[in-house]
Amino acid sequence: MPARVVSALRPLILLALAAATPVAAAPARAPEDRTIASIRALPAYRKAAQTLSAQHDRFVGEIIALTEIPSPPFGEAKRAAAYREMLARHGLTDIETDAEGNVMGLRRGTAPAGGKVIVVSAHLDTVFPAGTDVKVRREGTKLHAPGIGDDSRGLATMLAWIRALDAAKIRTRHDVLFVGTVGEEGQGDLRGVRHFFTQGKYKDRVAAFYSVDGIDPAQLTHAAVGSKRYRVTFKGPGGHSFSAFGIVNPMAAAARAITDLYEIVPPAQPKTTYAAAVVGGGTSVNSIPDSVFVEFDMRSESAAELDGLEKRFLATVDRAVAAENAARSTREGAITAEKKKIGDRPAGVTSRTAPIVTFTAAAARAQGFSPEYEASSTDANVPISLGVPAITIGSGGTGERAHSTDEYIDVEATESLRGLQVGLLSLLAVAGMERR
Amino acid sequence: MPARVVSALRPLILLALAAATPVAAAPARAPEDRTIASIRALPAYRKAAQTLSAQHDRFVGEIIALTEIPSPPFGEAKRAAAYREMLARHGLTDIETDAEGNVMGLRRGTAPAGGKVIVVSAHLDTVFPAGTDVKVRREGTKLHAPGIGDDSRGLATMLAWIRALDAAKIRTRHDVLFVGTVGEEGQGDLRGVRHFFTQGKYKDRVAAFYSVDGIDPAQLTHAAVGSKRYRVTFKGPGGHSFSAFGIVNPMAAAARAITDLYEIVPPAQPKTTYAAAVVGGGTSVNSIPDSVFVEFDMRSESAAELDGLEKRFLATVDRAVAAENAARSTREGAITAEKKKIGDRPAGVTSRTAPIVTFTAAAARAQGFSPEYEASSTDANVPISLGVPAITIGSGGTGERAHSTDEYIDVEATESLRGLQVGLLSLLAVAGMERR
Repeated sequence: MPARVVSALRPLILLALAAATPVAAAPARAPEDRTIASIRALPAYRKAAQTLSAQHDRFVGEIIALTEIPSPPFGEAKRAAAYREMLARHGLTDIETDAEGNVMGLRRGTAPAGGKVIVVSAHLDTVFPAGTDVKVRREGTKLHAPGIGDDSRGLATMLAWIRALDAAKIRTRHDVLFVGTVGEEGQGDLRGVRHFFTQGKYKDRVAAFYSVDGIDPAQLTHAAVGSKRYRVTFKGPGGHSFSAFGIVNPMAAAARAITDLYEIVPPAQPKTTYAAAVVGGGTSVNSIPDSVFVEFDMRSESAAELDGLEKRFLATVDRAVAAENAARSTREGAITAEKKKIGDRPAGVTSRTAPIVTFTAAAARAQGFSPEYEASSTDANVPISLGVPAITIGSGGTGERAHSTDEYIDVEATESLRGLQVGLLSLLAVAGMERR
Repeated sequence: MPARVVSALRPLILLALAAATPVAAAPARAPEDRTIASIRALPAYRKAAQTLSAQHDRFVGEIIALTEIPSPPFGEAKRAAAYREMLARHGLTDIETDAEGNVMGLRRGTAPAGGKVIVVSAHLDTVFPAGTDVKVRREGTKLHAPGIGDDSRGLATMLAWIRALDAAKIRTRHDVLFVGTVGEEGQGDLRGVRHFFTQGKYKDRVAAFYSVDGIDPAQLTHAAVGSKRYRVTFKGPGGHSFSAFGIVNPMAAAARAITDLYEIVPPAQPKTTYAAAVVGGGTSVNSIPDSVFVEFDMRSESAAELDGLEKRFLATVDRAVAAENAARSTREGAITAEKKKIGDRPAGVTSRTAPIVTFTAAAARAQGFSPEYEASSTDANVPISLGVPAITIGSGGTGERAHSTDEYIDVEATESLRGLQVGLLSLLAVAGMERR
């Protein structure tokens, strides 16, 4: 698909280069830079960019409106319903809420119906529990509220792009499916996008996948850090610290598992990590505890490395339990370990030479950013792990303190609009922009 | 002092043996059994025992009244004030509340003032926090309330004994000091008895020390299990589990300390134990924690073994911290361990041949119990560690679930009175019962 797009745009590229003046940015060198430059020069694109600018206040209003609908993990239904209505009002077709709670609508391209689709998504959920105050506090161009940049701005960005395309009468070759996903954050464990790619009706038609998530469009997340997370509960009989001394202690088993895990030296490339992150157990200083839990996190850019680490980790836990049961008395009962998987995000990489990456990088450069290639754990993990070209990009502006209740974004228009165009330019290059 | 007592009672012993009938219990064989039998046979003692029986309802009423005055750790003042008034109303002299909050009063003996004193004590505090419902619920002879057996019954027992002695006009040779102590339970760390023996005005005059604590008079606690307790907080820089991987993790240091501690094999005799008991730390599964605490308990019947174990434990913590700082990067900061001592109870043993032990065992046998020699951690720890003969005994009756809000005692009179006399008989033998 990207090859066809470049081909379609070739006359425009020449036009764009001819129009370049000596005071313009350094001449685009790579083919993808030339493609992006040619799109930017098109009158239709200029109209789209002007629309983004003219409607920036509306865009900000939508960010606020979406933010103020609480959307805690596993409680996104109300925001999802509101967003579904917004997608419908923007003229999309095939509006639906799927079985997992994702909402979506299609913007038909010129290609025959039922062909490939380009997915543009943002996530509906926040990390904040029900009851969190989500009222937006405005200070000049700064908007303070939990979840406002992660990911209300992403949701509003999709609406702004649809309006800009419509105002400019731009048709793409491929269908573009706009999706608000549920369950992107920690506990949600990517349940929305996972459902979309395993059971959703578009699952076999996705040619490229954008997750519009976060702020900085210079950060181009093309590597999906996979993760496996476990809550291991070590259990034993427990007892009085003096009179029952000599019996097995689940804390000793947990400690041995942690100690042994930390002997593992994972590869630096592909980056692979582990952490013993949260621990708790015991009731009083004069009692051998009957239960101790430890939460473990394992991550890798490589699915194979992650699987290998998981196997070693699980074996480490089993060995630690066996060692404790061998070291001390099991007369009151033996140590057991309940290994509950609490997270499983697939790993993978979209090649830096994939068109979705090269066009996005070119778009970022065209807008004055220096692209940085990032590895992270986002909705894009799932398509990446399936071999579907996918990236996660920010939608512009500035901001800080995501995942904290101090979160804020700055929607100062010049900077906001500069970033807002990166994803739109990339989308047009990848989806194919029809000549009119 | 006990030698003199035996000497003083010799004629009575002969009398008692002569009075024994074939259907009485097996003849007392050891000298201390003969002494106790002779005391039991005295008309004055019979009068005292009859008084205990006649006033059993009053005794039960005092147990209830004391129980219903909340007395949480570090909040014993109200119960202490009430108990002080009770001691004063029972005709004791030298009534005082010392600087730590212990309350006490003296029952003068026949020996010149300022000589040795025999201490009889019970503790004022409970394990239950402020706000715990301490209303006593009565079901037949069962009384349900937190702290009712541990140690309201002990406090009421002292009052019952004083009344019995007074009614029988019994004078002891030595002064008997009745003390309600503060801070016996866990958090209190024996602060009351510790103050009594380090700064109290009687500290150099104590010839023997009874702690009336708990129910079962067959359990004769003559060995003081010493304990040292630490809350160790392992701290580090913390960070993102993926991006900061490679930095030191305080949980890995804590785990190594626990693992290494559990390699130590302490002696079975004198019994010496340790436990990693309570653990907590970490904020989220995707973060390297910045703090993990572990509470450790170490105990021994031997002060020397306990000191040795404490040294090895502290060295183990230091080595674990050093190992973690060597194993991973300290670029964001190093691991430290704050070792806070949260408990320190001295160890020791009152010899089984000490008169306070042999007389109490004989008294228990005389009342139909089979003495069991116990090691525990009670107010008696402090005098035992100082070489003062001391024991902890129960005051009779039955009961269960001490340290739980389900605690209850059964005050059925026959069984209650059978146990109630054990301590009184031992006290009369040890304090010396003057012939009249």
